[in-house]
Amino acid sequence: MGKRDLRLRAVVAPSQTVVASAYDENGRADACTLAFYAICSHKPPCVMIAINAILKRKTLKSILSSGTFTVNFPNIDQVKEVDYLGVETGYNADKLKNIGLTTTKAKKVDAPIINEMPLALECKVVHTSTVGSHTQIIGESKNIQADISILNENDRIILEKMKQIIYNEEEFLYYSLGKKYQKRLNLALN
Amino acid sequence: MGKRDLRLRAVVAPSQTVVASAYDENGRADACTLAFYAICSHKPPCVMIAINAILKRKTLKSILSSGTFTVNFPNIDQVKEVDYLGVETGYNADKLKNIGLTTTKAKKVDAPIINEMPLALECKVVHTSTVGSHTQIIGESKNIQADISILNENDRIILEKMKQIIYNEEEFLYYSLGKKYQKRLNLALN
Repeated sequence: MGKRDLRLRAVVAPSQTVVASAYDENGRADACTLAFYAICSHKPPCVMIAINAILKRKTLKSILSSGTFTVNFPNIDQVKEVDYLGVETGYNADKLKNIGLTTTKAKKVDAPIINEMPLALECKVVHTSTVGSHTQIIGESKNIQADISILNENDRIILEKMKQIIYNEEEFLYYSLGKKYQKRLNLALN
Repeated sequence: MGKRDLRLRAVVAPSQTVVASAYDENGRADACTLAFYAICSHKPPCVMIAINAILKRKTLKSILSSGTFTVNFPNIDQVKEVDYLGVETGYNADKLKNIGLTTTKAKKVDAPIINEMPLALECKVVHTSTVGSHTQIIGESKNIQADISILNENDRIILEKMKQIIYNEEEFLYYSLGKKYQKRLNLALN
């Protein structure tokens, strides 16, 4: 195995694709697609999303002013919607309405859930920082809503039904998850 | 589509699996497996990793004291190594040596690259925060090294050769990426 230095770039490995959503000051639901998402605490459960601060994204403004947001997980059949929500800006258009998506107010936070997406985290902002071009927002999960159609009898998510989108910028391609490999033997410490 | 509230938990959707590595004060390479990783800035390119602060992980200590780390992307044939690096602690064992992995000093930062893994980011710590059980570390990418075997003629990564590991805690299963779906039409704003 020989190694080579690559041109420096942020997006090199395939990433999870999620849609962040929040209400603006007029109660309209904003949403934007992100590949910059991770879990970042077990207890309490927290996630981090990062949104471009230089482009003045409307969803970022709405998250920071409302102090709440949701993280919605689209499935592979929603690539068209996800692509549009990542490219258009909420200052020009009512994006969710234009692409045919509807929302419902979350249960534990004052933010919109995208009805058509199978999984949503309801989050309260607990920390923000701005490093480089992006604002990083840490949200504490207050509730998880999943569509009944993706759950087994123990309320565990069936991956083949969730059909999460993975985005690979090396090829500008969306992927779905592939074949199962190996059960883990031990519990992760992280 | 009817929605159901799930038991609140941090790891609900499948996540990328990476291995963070840093030198301790004696120059020994520490490493631990993480599912808590994301890109968090385009310019400069930055990534975030989160490591359990309560368990006193040795790799966390080494990252904070050295101010540098690498993010290594294992492939699906390295599940055994990844599992071990996630469960054992560096205070008890020379983990990399025990599992048969070797390292080389990175080019732009003073941290170890895991030779056997096909992709590595060389990072300098630029921001830290501790929210909940985990310390979130933002690192600026100073260099990217990829194994020649996973690159095409334009130095772009061939996904089928990289064979990234995705971990799904709902089933305690490791996955590899599946079939290609659709090319994206527009460039993401994030």
